[in-house]
Amino acid sequence: MTTDALGPNATIGIIGGGQLGRMLALAAAELGLRTHIYCPDKDCPAAQVTDAVTHAAYDDTEALSAFSAAVDVVTYEFENIPVATVNHVAARKPVFPSAKALEVAQDRWQEKSFIRAQGFEVADFFDITDRASLNAALQETGGSGILKTRHFGYDGKGQWRLDADSDLDKVLEDLDGRAAILEALVPFEREVSILVARGRDGSTACYDVIENFHRNHTLHTSTLPAALPDHLPDADPANPHKMAEKLAHALDYVGVLAIECFVVGERLLVNEIAPRVHNSGHLTQDACHVGQFEQHIRAIAGWTLGDATAHSDAVMTNLLGDEIDQWPDLAAQKATHVHLYGKSEARAGRKMGHVTKLSAKTR
Amino acid sequence: MTTDALGPNATIGIIGGGQLGRMLALAAAELGLRTHIYCPDKDCPAAQVTDAVTHAAYDDTEALSAFSAAVDVVTYEFENIPVATVNHVAARKPVFPSAKALEVAQDRWQEKSFIRAQGFEVADFFDITDRASLNAALQETGGSGILKTRHFGYDGKGQWRLDADSDLDKVLEDLDGRAAILEALVPFEREVSILVARGRDGSTACYDVIENFHRNHTLHTSTLPAALPDHLPDADPANPHKMAEKLAHALDYVGVLAIECFVVGERLLVNEIAPRVHNSGHLTQDACHVGQFEQHIRAIAGWTLGDATAHSDAVMTNLLGDEIDQWPDLAAQKATHVHLYGKSEARAGRKMGHVTKLSAKTR
Repeated sequence: MTTDALGPNATIGIIGGGQLGRMLALAAAELGLRTHIYCPDKDCPAAQVTDAVTHAAYDDTEALSAFSAAVDVVTYEFENIPVATVNHVAARKPVFPSAKALEVAQDRWQEKSFIRAQGFEVADFFDITDRASLNAALQETGGSGILKTRHFGYDGKGQWRLDADSDLDKVLEDLDGRAAILEALVPFEREVSILVARGRDGSTACYDVIENFHRNHTLHTSTLPAALPDHLPDADPANPHKMAEKLAHALDYVGVLAIECFVVGERLLVNEIAPRVHNSGHLTQDACHVGQFEQHIRAIAGWTLGDATAHSDAVMTNLLGDEIDQWPDLAAQKATHVHLYGKSEARAGRKMGHVTKLSAKTR
Repeated sequence: MTTDALGPNATIGIIGGGQLGRMLALAAAELGLRTHIYCPDKDCPAAQVTDAVTHAAYDDTEALSAFSAAVDVVTYEFENIPVATVNHVAARKPVFPSAKALEVAQDRWQEKSFIRAQGFEVADFFDITDRASLNAALQETGGSGILKTRHFGYDGKGQWRLDADSDLDKVLEDLDGRAAILEALVPFEREVSILVARGRDGSTACYDVIENFHRNHTLHTSTLPAALPDHLPDADPANPHKMAEKLAHALDYVGVLAIECFVVGERLLVNEIAPRVHNSGHLTQDACHVGQFEQHIRAIAGWTLGDATAHSDAVMTNLLGDEIDQWPDLAAQKATHVHLYGKSEARAGRKMGHVTKLSAKTR
């Protein structure tokens, strides 16, 4: 705990009002902390569960100043908010994680360079500025790869999978001059995520490694613990945890940091980092003593980090779009924890909720 | 599930804004349901976590009508709200539990008569109207007992323990003409509570029996499961559950009903019933798949009741008054779930929060 830790009834400002902001606000409330949501969208899910709300644009400096004055500490729920927004607030109130972590996570080139500089593996990647650099990069990767915009991509958006049959002119037209990288394909066997929390005092707490299954570029299910293969030295949970801690320390990070990795034979390659609570960590709410949302709140509030130990194994399944209509059946299942986000419109592919099914620990 | 079950984004009205209302609102939010709190107190804990609030008196019929119009279904968080308030709302929107359960629970004489009529044991009790009836009752009980007001008592308030040394004149002066009963002392070995939920479709779900330890007439700790003695036939959990279900059915109850009992040798005597979520059930939040708050919300919303099974054993400890100042140490303990209520003033004896410590299941 830090000497300036927030006590009960202090107010945490949260920039962004989606489901992550909502679950952060609910976790803060369990600890007796108040929340103030800053979100342009008047119908945002987090506004339903908070003490105070500011609905204003991310570049409304007057509203940002008033918001800063009304809160004790600030965090954000997603990595695509403008760094200028965070800097404006940070000049007035402590913001965690810092703008530095945000900058690194917002730029795939910086992100991968940072991870490599810390001594960890990533897929080969190449800076793409034009047709010539794309051709050169494809030569290196053997003709295939994933072209990704450097900024503002998530859930497969801003990504093109390239192979010998790709129409590169069309792809570059779609890219429309945005900065990009080409990533070599990684023949991975499984995808995992490592969630680490780092407190304001530099202490850390890691969750057991979580395994992820995607569908249409969007997380479908996550399981705890991950089924890491026996031959993998990283099956020793100490190794991924040491990596996560090193990355968090290097960023002077405060809060929950999510590290998505590919498992390739005996190697662990970092795919990307997210400077926030993460969809794959939703199962920690129900399966661990202190879940990722409470852990993030504890970290930014200067509290001692909580016990990240799992009391149960778990499988989390996202409810996308009209899958939310399954709620009556899901709510009737044994050992099942239902979470719905209060979104009014079930657009196709939209994250509407999730369910976590617990079972007795197997190891 | 009932055919008119509330879907996501429906609004539940909650009369009362204390910690129980707050935790009900948080549980509703996890299910994607909105809440509207009705509470006279402008600084009430539940208002911090809800979508809408009405601050008005319990006899403000205009405000009650507007509140009824704004919500889909109504519940209440404590049993001392006026029956007239509930009746006013019930004429406009469905209210669960019904006013009937509230009336029975508000009057110790009706309550004990009801329980006895259902075939269950209670301590001997006597209607007290004056000195003569008190003398006669004390004669029956052997000169001792607990004098209790029929209405509005909780946490030891409105109670006087009487024995040969008691100054009965003074006690009757304190009673000040209020209706009362004298209850015979029960030489109990332990106190337990049985929580049953009953849905709008008449289905029921029971939690494992919880054992309670009081200090200064206020609940101090609760443990799950209760350590029922081996020689007690009721150690078979089916028996207390059958009792709880019978009482819930007899009241045509909807929601979570708490039944506090004394264990005396091989007998289970009902002490009182509470038509609401209960302090002794707080541990179900963390130890069971679906805790009492979510279960109550599911019941009144017409949902299928959730899985009340415990995944862990648990000990819950209340934080009264300045015990809340222990939060930094409590938050650092293993397997410990901290819940603080957002109350601004830590008055002596006031319920400020609770902590639940989990451990692996022992049976």
